[in-house]
Amino acid sequence: MPADERLLHPDEALKIVLSQVRRLPVETVPLAEAGGRILAADLIADQDLPPFPAATMDGFAVIASDVSPWREIIGDQFAGTMEGIEITPGTTARIMTGAPLPHGADAVVQVEHTELREDHVVIHQEIVAEGENLRPVGSDLRKGDVLVSAGSRIGPAEIGLLASLGHAEVEVYRRPRFSILSTGDELVEPDQVPGPGQIRDSNRFSLTVAAEAAGAEVVWSGHAPDDETALRELILKRIAESDVVITSGGVSMGDKDFVKAILNEIATVHFRRLFMKPGKPLNFATAGDGTLVFGLPGNPVSALVEFEIFIRTALRAMTGQQHPEPATASAILEHWVAGTDRIEYQRGIVSVDEAGQLRARNTGSQASARLMSLVGANAFLVIQPREAAYEAGERVPVILLQPVSSER
Amino acid sequence: MPADERLLHPDEALKIVLSQVRRLPVETVPLAEAGGRILAADLIADQDLPPFPAATMDGFAVIASDVSPWREIIGDQFAGTMEGIEITPGTTARIMTGAPLPHGADAVVQVEHTELREDHVVIHQEIVAEGENLRPVGSDLRKGDVLVSAGSRIGPAEIGLLASLGHAEVEVYRRPRFSILSTGDELVEPDQVPGPGQIRDSNRFSLTVAAEAAGAEVVWSGHAPDDETALRELILKRIAESDVVITSGGVSMGDKDFVKAILNEIATVHFRRLFMKPGKPLNFATAGDGTLVFGLPGNPVSALVEFEIFIRTALRAMTGQQHPEPATASAILEHWVAGTDRIEYQRGIVSVDEAGQLRARNTGSQASARLMSLVGANAFLVIQPREAAYEAGERVPVILLQPVSSER
Repeated sequence: MPADERLLHPDEALKIVLSQVRRLPVETVPLAEAGGRILAADLIADQDLPPFPAATMDGFAVIASDVSPWREIIGDQFAGTMEGIEITPGTTARIMTGAPLPHGADAVVQVEHTELREDHVVIHQEIVAEGENLRPVGSDLRKGDVLVSAGSRIGPAEIGLLASLGHAEVEVYRRPRFSILSTGDELVEPDQVPGPGQIRDSNRFSLTVAAEAAGAEVVWSGHAPDDETALRELILKRIAESDVVITSGGVSMGDKDFVKAILNEIATVHFRRLFMKPGKPLNFATAGDGTLVFGLPGNPVSALVEFEIFIRTALRAMTGQQHPEPATASAILEHWVAGTDRIEYQRGIVSVDEAGQLRARNTGSQASARLMSLVGANAFLVIQPREAAYEAGERVPVILLQPVSSER
Repeated sequence: MPADERLLHPDEALKIVLSQVRRLPVETVPLAEAGGRILAADLIADQDLPPFPAATMDGFAVIASDVSPWREIIGDQFAGTMEGIEITPGTTARIMTGAPLPHGADAVVQVEHTELREDHVVIHQEIVAEGENLRPVGSDLRKGDVLVSAGSRIGPAEIGLLASLGHAEVEVYRRPRFSILSTGDELVEPDQVPGPGQIRDSNRFSLTVAAEAAGAEVVWSGHAPDDETALRELILKRIAESDVVITSGGVSMGDKDFVKAILNEIATVHFRRLFMKPGKPLNFATAGDGTLVFGLPGNPVSALVEFEIFIRTALRAMTGQQHPEPATASAILEHWVAGTDRIEYQRGIVSVDEAGQLRARNTGSQASARLMSLVGANAFLVIQPREAAYEAGERVPVILLQPVSSER
């Protein structure tokens, strides 16, 4: 068997993919467009937050040790202004949540513990502690703290921090540009009725959705005809304009599988076949200016499983994410699973039982072309090769794709 | 204390929110734009898949029971065509992965187990089973099966199924239209330097990112000034053009809190304050043609926690998702947590230990204004009110916001 036909362990394959990844360039985007992007530089606090001691309740700003039976109201302190009020024993000021503490005061008594008389107020709280109902300067952030590391995805909290620290623009990694080509003469468009021996193209749509959900910009997505010259030209053009080119179909051993021949000619092919199921064929190559080319099989389940394991990992590495590899956890099998001769990624549902224990079951028939096995799946159950069946109650590694929850 | 000031249990509040939700209208979108949307009608298989017995390997189509020592090659069967080949004992045809099985044949022998001679082929496989290396008709899907239920999010597998079944267009729920208003005179834009007592607006940005990630279309997002007349006009206009209006700030007890007064006047207010922390204030109202109005506090952590618990749930219910409430699981506390007088949603990290057990820890200081407590959090730890502290090793419910994994 020629070297390029040996079945490569998926972990080894992943290492090869990661060794070929190049970090994407950095670009600057307005804050309002930074959501979901990957931060390219550590976010460092350039000031203390809050920059002033701020009230956490509506109430009255007082001196904690002041024992006056009532206090004269000498002003109102709203959020957003500094009124120049100076609190002295026997005086107080109304203060609103978020407002800066007036000079002289060191605590806030919440309005519910006070009683308003004409021009003064009575405090109905026996002991007022210094700092009560106040957020001290720097209690949220200290100047110089690393708040969010480069490589983090910018979610709601991160964008809130960026905004509060005055970042009207943000340095992020450019979104990876993906081209997605489905190949195969047997494919027709979804709105066409398949003739004898034909099927509708689905991979192009599912891979596009998967790529976009992973943060890629899909710059081209279409059906390439099974004509070698046209296909070569198309692939070359897509390589020139993309960071990642994905083909599906045309990588098995049939005579009309042009993708394999074209990649041999125009690219450096790093591996072809994997010791895994579904998804034995995977042509991985690099070409042009470092573009990654993934030749996925036409089987829609294999294509999506390989996307999840290899392409999503490459995408995370391209944008400097700290743990690019798929994250695994351990779960208890709920049912018998047959032994396997290759590492098998069963599509499954992982849930949490009442004792907080992860439990895993598959989604039924794992026939490799059965797209239904992915519907409702939130995980892959990673079944290591062995002859004997796995019994219910055994522990297997799982790759969680979605949040888990209790059964319901 | 007036009735509207009682602290409502979050579970009760959630029931009230859900009782006010109206299902959004359905719209038809092209398949290529359906990713991430919510399916509005069950997807039913209208045919068997595959519609023909298909090869799962490259090889030769044979009659399993044929014991001929060698076979004449009478044709090539590619995917995408029907060649009209008829296999009889002593004959075979080359066949490619995905290609339909020629008439007469009932198995495929993979190419690795054959040896090619001039015009015939020798099968080096002692026993060939009927159906070997074939996917039978209907093995993926049976006509009439419910494949994906209405209310499901359309991910890669779902879009693949839609494509293979010929759905060039898909009925989905319209995306909910959100307007997001931040209020407060103390707020300045991110590119401005805050003056004394001022802070930069962050909620508008974080709530917009949260809403978009949840599938909403944010039709308006801006800073509303603290002028009662202008604010009333703006809120009325946003109610008329939105399914959900979110305000942040202006719902505590201060004199300048106009949102509360305006909602009293133009909307039906269902509740105002919750028995939870962070996030005691939450004005929930309905107005106009069923628009939901959420008056969130200005505190950025409270605003995001309330968004996650209440607004995201409302959004799921609007689009007919089957389990709109936040999904909980059980996890073991890794550290001591102080008792609490209100239900506390601590921001935390849930991971899976080597025994497959969920473990939970918080993200450090849970001071309610500390946006940092949300950075890196993948869960809320739900701490029920009690005086005694929670010990390490106790079990608490958690709401998982992101996939969990093993510690690394």
